Amino acid sequence: MIRRGFQAVIRLGHHRVLPGAPHVLPRLNRTSAFGSSTDSLVSRFCLEKTDLKDYALPNASWCPDMLNLYQEFLEKTKTDGWIKLPSFKSNRDHIQGLKLPFGLAATSDKSDWRIFTRCLQVEGQGYEYVIFFHPSKKKSICLFQPGPYLEGAPGFAHGGSLAAMMDETFSKTAYLAGEGLFTLSLNIRFKNLIPVGSLAVLNVDVEKIEDQKLYMSCIAQSRDQQRVYAKSSGVFLQLQLEEELSQ
Amino acid sequence: MIRRGFQAVIRLGHHRVLPGAPHVLPRLNRTSAFGSSTDSLVSRFCLEKTDLKDYALPNASWCPDMLNLYQEFLEKTKTDGWIKLPSFKSNRDHIQGLKLPFGLAATSDKSDWRIFTRCLQVEGQGYEYVIFFHPSKKKSICLFQPGPYLEGAPGFAHGGSLAAMMDETFSKTAYLAGEGLFTLSLNIRFKNLIPVGSLAVLNVDVEKIEDQKLYMSCIAQSRDQQRVYAKSSGVFLQLQLEEELSQ
Repeated sequence: MIRRGFQAVIRLGHHRVLPGAPHVLPRLNRTSAFGSSTDSLVSRFCLEKTDLKDYALPNASWCPDMLNLYQEFLEKTKTDGWIKLPSFKSNRDHIQGLKLPFGLAATSDKSDWRIFTRCLQVEGQGYEYVIFFHPSKKKSICLFQPGPYLEGAPGFAHGGSLAAMMDETFSKTAYLAGEGLFTLSLNIRFKNLIPVGSLAVLNVDVEKIEDQKLYMSCIAQSRDQQRVYAKSSGVFLQLQLEEELSQ
Repeated sequence: MIRRGFQAVIRLGHHRVLPGAPHVLPRLNRTSAFGSSTDSLVSRFCLEKTDLKDYALPNASWCPDMLNLYQEFLEKTKTDGWIKLPSFKSNRDHIQGLKLPFGLAATSDKSDWRIFTRCLQVEGQGYEYVIFFHPSKKKSICLFQPGPYLEGAPGFAHGGSLAAMMDETFSKTAYLAGEGLFTLSLNIRFKNLIPVGSLAVLNVDVEKIEDQKLYMSCIAQSRDQQRVYAKSSGVFLQLQLEEELSQ
């Protein structure tokens, strides 16, 4: 297994991008260091025809708050430019036909792999969530309902489960807003505990894209915004996914 | 369901602790704001007689590095003051006979609850980990092997899964070192990806205990310390668990 990390990747990124495209850095307002538009990233991500199961759809475990807000945002996908992101069981499904940058090659595909936030299969037991993304505003909303297998203190979601949900929402936002692929840092301030089975709404904003990094912020709160659960910031590294030459 | 959070708890803590024990703050060198010694916390935590399954024991999925280092630390429990912490399926099992502070009462116990880091039951599929704690040094070592259901980038552990493992190791360390119960902040800098199925060693130190808060640091790296996966810091709030009056 090839073990290369961020430092190697950052060097790689600079070596690969800078000679051929010397103006990429430090132009601060470019969305992507690699020229892919957000629209093309979104259309590549949201497969129109697929047999893959989309886990970001309502099920019987969703609480009324989650269902209602899902419907509200679904309406906004028709008129306000929001996009509902599909959520497959593995990131391998999201990057079909593409490969990771050199040095981060995936291992054999024979195992049963799952993206961490879809690791539990029983509805309502673990992560229930759906992410809506707004390409031009570079915002995301994640509706998150932690189940009883995500517990920390009795009756409440584990801080780590919220940290992972924030990281995952940052991750998808960073990729679609500017080919941000890997978390460089994650800083969280916890304010209140999320009761198991209730809804937390995560609002994510891309604050800036600079020097091959995306800087994002997140606030997680109750639907009525009266209770802040946590605030966080995340920095992601931009890396270019490449087309597979042979499939 | 009572929804009270950290701000309420902090106020509660001050109101409850300060009038009766005005010298508790700001004495910086006290282990606990509430007078429980680390020894009594450890003996309360590590139940000698229990029918509960301990998930922090070797199984067939553990890689050789994990098994070897586990054996090394098990030897150190006999001579060097290290303690192997048991790991039950829920924090409810760890706090048997005790209750959370007022305002953080647990909901009904009828459901099947799991602590997040023991959410997956198939050996090797999710979290494999064991924590060793050193009471007098106020240190912990967590041996962590992420399984294929903890994936982020193909073949590597999700950043959020490491964040949760750090939070959980901080959490147990904070409780045993000084009744630290709740995460106030978690700051992580990611350096390299952890290959699924390999060992990451988390070294946690309590840096200081001050103003009812525990300040901790963590470095996660390969066994040979040649590869740093991530560095983090965490701040936990001290709260006193109380004996149940009627059981």
